Amino acid sequence: MSNIRIGMIGYKFMGKAHSNAYRALPMFFPKVSKPEMKAICGRDAEGLEKAREQFGWESAVTDWRELVKRDDIDVVDINAPSDAHKEIALAAAAAGKHIFCEKPLALNLADSVEMLKAAEQAGIKHMVGFNYRFVPAVQLAKKLISEGRIGKINHFRGLFLQDWIVDPSFPLVWRLQKEIAGSGSHGDLGAHVIDMARFLVGEFQEVIGMSETFVKERPIATAMTGLSATGLSAKGDKSAQLGEVTVDDATVFLARFADGALGSIEATRFAPGHRCTNTFEINGSKGSIKFDFERMNELQVFFTDDAEDVQGFRRVLATDPSHAYMDAWWPAGHTIGYEHTFTHEMLEFMNAIAEDRQPVPNFVDGVECQAVLEAVDKSIEERRWVAISELR
Amino acid sequence: MSNIRIGMIGYKFMGKAHSNAYRALPMFFPKVSKPEMKAICGRDAEGLEKAREQFGWESAVTDWRELVKRDDIDVVDINAPSDAHKEIALAAAAAGKHIFCEKPLALNLADSVEMLKAAEQAGIKHMVGFNYRFVPAVQLAKKLISEGRIGKINHFRGLFLQDWIVDPSFPLVWRLQKEIAGSGSHGDLGAHVIDMARFLVGEFQEVIGMSETFVKERPIATAMTGLSATGLSAKGDKSAQLGEVTVDDATVFLARFADGALGSIEATRFAPGHRCTNTFEINGSKGSIKFDFERMNELQVFFTDDAEDVQGFRRVLATDPSHAYMDAWWPAGHTIGYEHTFTHEMLEFMNAIAEDRQPVPNFVDGVECQAVLEAVDKSIEERRWVAISELR
Amino acid sequence: MSNIRIGMIGYKFMGKAHSNAYRALPMFFPKVSKPEMKAICGRDAEGLEKAREQFGWESAVTDWRELVKRDDIDVVDINAPSDAHKEIALAAAAAGKHIFCEKPLALNLADSVEMLKAAEQAGIKHMVGFNYRFVPAVQLAKKLISEGRIGKINHFRGLFLQDWIVDPSFPLVWRLQKEIAGSGSHGDLGAHVIDMARFLVGEFQEVIGMSETFVKERPIATAMTGLSATGLSAKGDKSAQLGEVTVDDATVFLARFADGALGSIEATRFAPGHRCTNTFEINGSKGSIKFDFERMNELQVFFTDDAEDVQGFRRVLATDPSHAYMDAWWPAGHTIGYEHTFTHEMLEFMNAIAEDRQPVPNFVDGVECQAVLEAVDKSIEERRWVAISELR
Amino acid sequence: MSNIRIGMIGYKFMGKAHSNAYRALPMFFPKVSKPEMKAICGRDAEGLEKAREQFGWESAVTDWRELVKRDDIDVVDINAPSDAHKEIALAAAAAGKHIFCEKPLALNLADSVEMLKAAEQAGIKHMVGFNYRFVPAVQLAKKLISEGRIGKINHFRGLFLQDWIVDPSFPLVWRLQKEIAGSGSHGDLGAHVIDMARFLVGEFQEVIGMSETFVKERPIATAMTGLSATGLSAKGDKSAQLGEVTVDDATVFLARFADGALGSIEATRFAPGHRCTNTFEINGSKGSIKFDFERMNELQVFFTDDAEDVQGFRRVLATDPSHAYMDAWWPAGHTIGYEHTFTHEMLEFMNAIAEDRQPVPNFVDGVECQAVLEAVDKSIEERRWVAISELR
Repeated sequence: MSNIRIGMIGYKFMGKAHSNAYRALPMFFPKVSKPEMKAICGRDAEGLEKAREQFGWESAVTDWRELVKRDDIDVVDINAPSDAHKEIALAAAAAGKHIFCEKPLALNLADSVEMLKAAEQAGIKHMVGFNYRFVPAVQLAKKLISEGRIGKINHFRGLFLQDWIVDPSFPLVWRLQKEIAGSGSHGDLGAHVIDMARFLVGEFQEVIGMSETFVKERPIATAMTGLSATGLSAKGDKSAQLGEVTVDDATVFLARFADGALGSIEATRFAPGHRCTNTFEINGSKGSIKFDFERMNELQVFFTDDAEDVQGFRRVLATDPSHAYMDAWWPAGHTIGYEHTFTHEMLEFMNAIAEDRQPVPNFVDGVECQAVLEAVDKSIEERRWVAISELR
Repeated sequence: MSNIRIGMIGYKFMGKAHSNAYRALPMFFPKVSKPEMKAICGRDAEGLEKAREQFGWESAVTDWRELVKRDDIDVVDINAPSDAHKEIALAAAAAGKHIFCEKPLALNLADSVEMLKAAEQAGIKHMVGFNYRFVPAVQLAKKLISEGRIGKINHFRGLFLQDWIVDPSFPLVWRLQKEIAGSGSHGDLGAHVIDMARFLVGEFQEVIGMSETFVKERPIATAMTGLSATGLSAKGDKSAQLGEVTVDDATVFLARFADGALGSIEATRFAPGHRCTNTFEINGSKGSIKFDFERMNELQVFFTDDAEDVQGFRRVLATDPSHAYMDAWWPAGHTIGYEHTFTHEMLEFMNAIAEDRQPVPNFVDGVECQAVLEAVDKSIEERRWVAISELR
Repeated sequence: MSNIRIGMIGYKFMGKAHSNAYRALPMFFPKVSKPEMKAICGRDAEGLEKAREQFGWESAVTDWRELVKRDDIDVVDINAPSDAHKEIALAAAAAGKHIFCEKPLALNLADSVEMLKAAEQAGIKHMVGFNYRFVPAVQLAKKLISEGRIGKINHFRGLFLQDWIVDPSFPLVWRLQKEIAGSGSHGDLGAHVIDMARFLVGEFQEVIGMSETFVKERPIATAMTGLSATGLSAKGDKSAQLGEVTVDDATVFLARFADGALGSIEATRFAPGHRCTNTFEINGSKGSIKFDFERMNELQVFFTDDAEDVQGFRRVLATDPSHAYMDAWWPAGHTIGYEHTFTHEMLEFMNAIAEDRQPVPNFVDGVECQAVLEAVDKSIEERRWVAISELR
Repeated sequence: MSNIRIGMIGYKFMGKAHSNAYRALPMFFPKVSKPEMKAICGRDAEGLEKAREQFGWESAVTDWRELVKRDDIDVVDINAPSDAHKEIALAAAAAGKHIFCEKPLALNLADSVEMLKAAEQAGIKHMVGFNYRFVPAVQLAKKLISEGRIGKINHFRGLFLQDWIVDPSFPLVWRLQKEIAGSGSHGDLGAHVIDMARFLVGEFQEVIGMSETFVKERPIATAMTGLSATGLSAKGDKSAQLGEVTVDDATVFLARFADGALGSIEATRFAPGHRCTNTFEINGSKGSIKFDFERMNELQVFFTDDAEDVQGFRRVLATDPSHAYMDAWWPAGHTIGYEHTFTHEMLEFMNAIAEDRQPVPNFVDGVECQAVLEAVDKSIEERRWVAISELR
């Protein structure tokens, strides 16, 4: 079992999360191939060096092209802004590096497909960052479904609710600009719900949606610096000029799954009180499952075959040794946090490389998610049901 | 303040609920015009007499036409099967009686409109049985919205989830037959959510939906008697012949409200673990509200202007004297049950008659709800967005 | 099955609750002996007549001695102030009437014992008003324990938390005066928890407690009228004279049960946010049970033998036909309220009389509860563990 | 700001937790003095070397006496078994090293006092491992109390409930043997609750308790190896010989605080369904606070001065930038886990050393906690109230 040498492009929110995961792996999963944090890459040399030291990378590189070619790198981890994903991935594949790419895989389906093909042709391992699959409680949901314990699935309801831009004086950060972000809540939050649905329920067949931008103009930020896209209290200068918000604040859609289940999915940044409510409920013929990321260590489970007088949703604290990953952490009842969705994700990536198999979720999942996102966009534009197959 | 004399047609689930409300009124709301329980009406003389005695009615009548004409009756309360509503209501209006009609007002929009017109021409008071409006916690939601305390509404999510027919051996009761019930979960459960949305958010503009009948054939019940439409354990004879289920098991739809809010609404009888989850969430520009009928005495409320370090959904137990109706009941913290949604509903009806004004909700609300229901049906059939205005 | 004729003494909070129960019985439990509401009794003729009409009693009597002797009365229902219980009960027993007596049975143990002996000698049926036993969810707890489904009980934790006198300007109502109320939160609220523990766990062996009066003086109310002991917003006149509070605001105690379980019990009126939190948890060798009266239709249940990966407290909504009393009410998922603890209580009383057996809980339970209350008082006074047997 | 060089003795559960904290600090709190993980110490050379590599320490030492004297060590971190704490601490103090010592500080009060005195005489910084103080939600509770936002405290209720030894076939591990563990649930779990009470409410004045060992004999483990004290499914060999359990399974006690508040505290390992329920509630004159460690990112808060119609416990997700430590972690709504109670704890320790002040909690807190623990023990033995002052 040899070490796996990582080169990472990007050093903001996701760069921090990935670095933390690489650092955690050898300590909590010592039997796994160890990631070596070889090089971190970003454009701003000063900020990069600070991140390098803080996160614990061996070296820093300001040109990703250089990084991608280095001989001492096995893996390229892409968490640069979304509009740079494709170019980097194609170069990394060409250089024969395994690739981890944050979601969204690319800004559109065509680019995603191109990336997938390049990866397949290069014969590399490729993975996409749908980290919520790696919550132990979500893994339990998957297990219950796979083992048939909730029966045939009839319903999926998925919500991703946030509230950080409800205040109309919140400034026009890059996440609210289509040319940079690609999409608003739909692509940012809805993508996670779509992937969760694919993971747990199966493929989408057709969709129809609606979307809205509730606050159409916002103060233009004189400088992005210091404006957190996730901060609650960030305020624009009230005397500032207004600029147009070019992405959706909220998107809601209906879905038919290939297996016949009915789905409804919503992503919004306009739900006061919801800092990060990534939640779903699944109803099957033999039981139900509920999950809320704000209580990520818990899964609610109901079985129709429980004794008649004590039927009820069980609040399962998924921190027992019987739950995925948890014997690596702390005693039962001692919860873990958001960050370890990435640790488990990277665990899968390291294992897949060591075992010479494709990790899951990989670029195929990135492509399929993008197809659903675009089918929804198309359904909104054309005001009709759109089959996912139309996008191919 | 004179008594108001009631003649009631129907004596099953709703007949029991209404009778109980009439009995409760003079005791808990003694300042209100007292309903006199004059006559109860049903076709089966034996069952009727039993109900008359049990519920406490003065007399029993097997022919509703007779009841409607009686001089000693001020109000006709219609909770007979849905397919009989129209004929009775038209006759009652012609006889100049005030009318309380259970939901659905009629089997279709045209009939509903006819009933409304007849009532208006007759100059009578008319009310429709959307009882969930009268939950104190829901009244609190209405108050908070009306006072602007949660701001402009952007989102409405409403669910009515039940689980009583998940078992495929559950028999083909009348509620699963279109010719009698008119509709399945959509008309039965979804109607309540639609009315709640209209009550709290405002008028619907356009909708698009999907529906499904998951179990397409069920054992034909040799006798309806003893088969509860709401019983959990009712089982059909497994050797019984199968008959077709002709209504929807579940219907889900998206909505645009006239004021711009986005809505999603679902009604299903296939959600294991949900005995009667009638729930909604509303997100406004200044706060949010959540309600779940299984915890009907509670309202969850969030305000964006709470102090920064103690923002959170408040679990308000709506049993204080400051909450609607509650000073008539028990000390704070002592909850009330489902049945008193009807008590408060009849309170509104008695008050409206005494004050010579139309009660709310009335036939107009019954018509509007029916229009939304049918717009959804049309959207499913034609696979497109349907404006409510198309139905007029 | 003949009717049972009731004479009721007292017409305030409990008088209203009992009247409501008598009215509900024939409608919801038609197969049970019907209570006839013969006579209501109180000292203030005007208030009494108003109550008689409002609650639906046939006649009104201002002298309880007269009522007790009436030939057309089978049962005397005592819900007069606590300091009058004994005298009335002795007279009723002497007259051969069955007795329902609100808790506390009497102001002290000696009086309680005297009442029990009188009842036994008279050969009458006697019941005491521990209404919380009759919550369907509590009945489910009892059933699970009786059937051994949570094993041998090791722990009992019971709390009764209220908050109506946290405000120091709340006036000195009678419940805060020892000579009338007998006791404060201990006797008023703690008594319910003690009875619940006896019902579910078994007899107490020894106790030790502490108590406190946090607000030692309060404004003297110029008139009691209009001052609700349960109102949240009742305010004393700030210029009013202050009087001494002579009962406990809070009492907490430890207990050993005869079977070895450990108990802790607390009653307080100083717990902001708790309007009426009557809650307990029981841990047995095979499972656990939790209950909170503010969500009285729910029971939380845990079983150690559930499958390893889905262990968790189940939220059981005790509204299914499989739950006690619930087939008499509404379909599954439709909750009932506080008031029907009394309906079920009176159901037991009517049934016991009809079946010629003692109802449960009866005066024996009233005596035992009083013994525990006084053992706690003694333990506080003498600052030592007190065995319940010392009180005999 | 220079680095701080750590030598750590112990490498099991707490050794892993501390190592993880040291590794996290420079990444998430880069402005703080960086801990250098110089040397790890344990008796078993093989296991130690494995831990050294896994946790990332520079060197390994099998003799703690050697470690304590090393020139390249500033801090001695003691998380060896409790019976070794004193000897190591005295030697470390004599060598002028700062000391972090896990709780319990020592096996008894006298030893604790000796350790405190030695630390004071040596003029070193000393800290004790009450990590639950460092939960952001608990810090919020502290802040609300300090700012007077819940008023004068009247009640404290603290529970630490676990369930890992309910099964009588669970073996006789060292935590169940008094000579090694010192105490059972009282010292292990109750100590945390006592410290929490001291942190939030203030000093204890007097206590009285009871305790029980429900399962008095357990299978003797042939080898400790592989038997987790925290595993749920660990089973003893049923044919194994039985040995006596010499510690308490559960201890419950009442307390008076110096400021007049009433407290009740319970620690048990016999509460099925509670993997790690470390929970408390505080009621003040102006509000209430509730916390449950199984949902460690949440605090429930109630204010009596909220508007009358929307009073209710708020569920505050303490993950906003306005909450302690949280701006170092992830965006609002993204939770952290148990492990970072240690990260924040070590943050306090590093900061205190850098700022040349005593960290909090320190050995004084360890001593005070031990005094309360022993006062409870004495109260159980002598069956009477014991003032903490008696122990001095």
